[in-house]
Amino acid sequence: MEAKIEFIPEGTVTSPKGFQAGATYAGIKKRATDVLDLGILISEAPCVATGVFTTNRIKAAPVVLSQQRLQRGRAVAVVVNSGCANACTGEQGLADAAEMAALTAERVGASPEDVLVASTGVIGHRLPMKLIRAGIGQIIPSTDGGHSLIKAMMTTDTVPKEIAAMVGGSGFIIGGVTKGSGMIHPNLATMLCFLTTDAAVDIDFLRLTLRQAVDNSFNMVSIDGDTSPSDMVLIMANGLAGSNEVIKQDSRLADAFQQALDQVCIYLAKSIASDGEGASKLIEVTVSRASSVAEARLAARTIVGSPLVKAAVHGSDPNWGRIMAAVGRSGVEVVESKIDLHLGGICVVKGGRPLPFDKESVVEALRGSEVSIDLNLNLRSAAATAWGCDLSEEYVTINSQYTT
Amino acid sequence: MEAKIEFIPEGTVTSPKGFQAGATYAGIKKRATDVLDLGILISEAPCVATGVFTTNRIKAAPVVLSQQRLQRGRAVAVVVNSGCANACTGEQGLADAAEMAALTAERVGASPEDVLVASTGVIGHRLPMKLIRAGIGQIIPSTDGGHSLIKAMMTTDTVPKEIAAMVGGSGFIIGGVTKGSGMIHPNLATMLCFLTTDAAVDIDFLRLTLRQAVDNSFNMVSIDGDTSPSDMVLIMANGLAGSNEVIKQDSRLADAFQQALDQVCIYLAKSIASDGEGASKLIEVTVSRASSVAEARLAARTIVGSPLVKAAVHGSDPNWGRIMAAVGRSGVEVVESKIDLHLGGICVVKGGRPLPFDKESVVEALRGSEVSIDLNLNLRSAAATAWGCDLSEEYVTINSQYTT
Repeated sequence: MEAKIEFIPEGTVTSPKGFQAGATYAGIKKRATDVLDLGILISEAPCVATGVFTTNRIKAAPVVLSQQRLQRGRAVAVVVNSGCANACTGEQGLADAAEMAALTAERVGASPEDVLVASTGVIGHRLPMKLIRAGIGQIIPSTDGGHSLIKAMMTTDTVPKEIAAMVGGSGFIIGGVTKGSGMIHPNLATMLCFLTTDAAVDIDFLRLTLRQAVDNSFNMVSIDGDTSPSDMVLIMANGLAGSNEVIKQDSRLADAFQQALDQVCIYLAKSIASDGEGASKLIEVTVSRASSVAEARLAARTIVGSPLVKAAVHGSDPNWGRIMAAVGRSGVEVVESKIDLHLGGICVVKGGRPLPFDKESVVEALRGSEVSIDLNLNLRSAAATAWGCDLSEEYVTINSQYTT
Repeated sequence: MEAKIEFIPEGTVTSPKGFQAGATYAGIKKRATDVLDLGILISEAPCVATGVFTTNRIKAAPVVLSQQRLQRGRAVAVVVNSGCANACTGEQGLADAAEMAALTAERVGASPEDVLVASTGVIGHRLPMKLIRAGIGQIIPSTDGGHSLIKAMMTTDTVPKEIAAMVGGSGFIIGGVTKGSGMIHPNLATMLCFLTTDAAVDIDFLRLTLRQAVDNSFNMVSIDGDTSPSDMVLIMANGLAGSNEVIKQDSRLADAFQQALDQVCIYLAKSIASDGEGASKLIEVTVSRASSVAEARLAARTIVGSPLVKAAVHGSDPNWGRIMAAVGRSGVEVVESKIDLHLGGICVVKGGRPLPFDKESVVEALRGSEVSIDLNLNLRSAAATAWGCDLSEEYVTINSQYTT
């Protein structure tokens, strides 16, 4: 059943009941004006919590720490910094992450084991603990602090990415913030995403729904094919919405919760894609009638991740052969003579053969800020959508001068 | 045993005895000055021949045709054009490729089944058969025609890539030409590569040696992660060097032949990498002491293919964290605390931890036209080398305006 999901104007991670957040400029990032780099998210009540973490075999210290703490399925707060990833920092890095959590616990009156840690920024540098110690003491959480928290998480992001949604008739809200514009790729959680809800949720159900929501959203985003050792998606559910019902597998609100979580995650994932480093366009690739969902996902991600497709979209060049080449190399089952392809809603390939099209119309469709690519494999019934962005000269400029 | 391999000055695909080539401007490409776009390579005597072809599931017509013809293990000539890939062209494309072969067979006095076909260029357009018919009639093969042939194969290549090598004491020569600067990626043959030798070689041995040479060379090159439906590596051996000995598995010259073929293919593969679209630097990544050769190859290719690593090298930015992140996501076995990393010969990571280094020295090393990245996993004894190029703003510019 389709749940009635409404987005809340200016909704954020502190929109669900009982969540507060705050942030400060601790001096970790170099730029000093209007910049935040250290933040705390906290729930008034203990939360059921879980996370999805980077698949990179090199894991940053905060990932190791948070992943381990979430085995118990609970948390109360998250502390996050930008400007330094605390990755490739060994035992010292783990000690620094643990200290960051302990300082936060002290500040907000929680147990250190209930505090999660996230860091993003340059790899291979120690956290400036002196700045972090001073910074944590300055943070004052509030119920509209989500807007500050997201600013403290941003690196090369150009816009804050935040959302909250309520499900009609259910009484609960799901909120979220996310950051990440380079080093984003499928099979990664994402860069950083914190999700909150005031629903009361069973931990096993929460783990399942988060995994599914991430598979349909963040794992379908590709900016540049790279993945970071720091990525994580966290969700905390504090049950303060007021219902006595704990949502679990097959319970009355299970479907609605999954749908709302999917919507929130897809919104945030698309925000990441359209704010990709140097991006000027959001690309949405839908692959339909594939042999399986796994194949539809693989094909959609391969197309949206192809540098040649991305560069062609950047130049509004209707070079559809690159899309055919990308799906061909993706390894999924294809029958060339069955493929239909639409660019910006205009059919350019029918039954695997080029269809005469008005070049100017297609170029015009590719000029928009959102470009749709629809590939119909005409095999079975599975479909998937992936999001990405165009590849611009600016992406290269940003990434050739990151640490220097 | 190490064979004594000498490169022949100005060597090319017609350096081995009994090979001729020629080319013409047929009008398939738009630019008219000093451009060739149609060529023929022919052997005076029938050849033992084989090929390695694209793994893309969308295969261009010439790939389908040549792959099928090589099942017999023999060939006499190859006809090649640039400017149009004859891909996604259906039954008509296959008929056009077959006609191209038949016209060439007639021109050079061979059987049509002994003529192979290769095409490179834009996907989705029919071959201009009228131009090709007229063009084939104009080609006059000669014994130094390899230099013309390679020009007829080039698309966005900026330099011709050709080589020949002789093995001391063996009496035979191996020559080769290759093209390809975009859409190059591991698990593809490459764009186009034609190899010739006047050695007499057993067909089973030739198939094995070509596969191994390609795995060590073209499959270790990455320009942009994309793969083309048109890629192929062909080798023809005509036995005209004058020896009575047919080289086969475990025969006296088997090792020397494999080594010479490896060297020729690695030379050509590196030429492709350093002439990558928009490239200003050749990147050579060696991964040593990995758990297996397959893992060493995967790690080396993942690093050399990372857009973030490529962009950092472009900007001479010693952002080594991106190399650690790339090997971490490659999926190979790593123990973070064992990793040593050298950039341009300078150690920057020892036992997984950053080593203080003189930034100016490393930046200086990254400024060269050849940049080496050496990653030692310190696990077992397997090693592999991969080649690629930096990612520049120019790459994006080239690829956003390819068909328009």
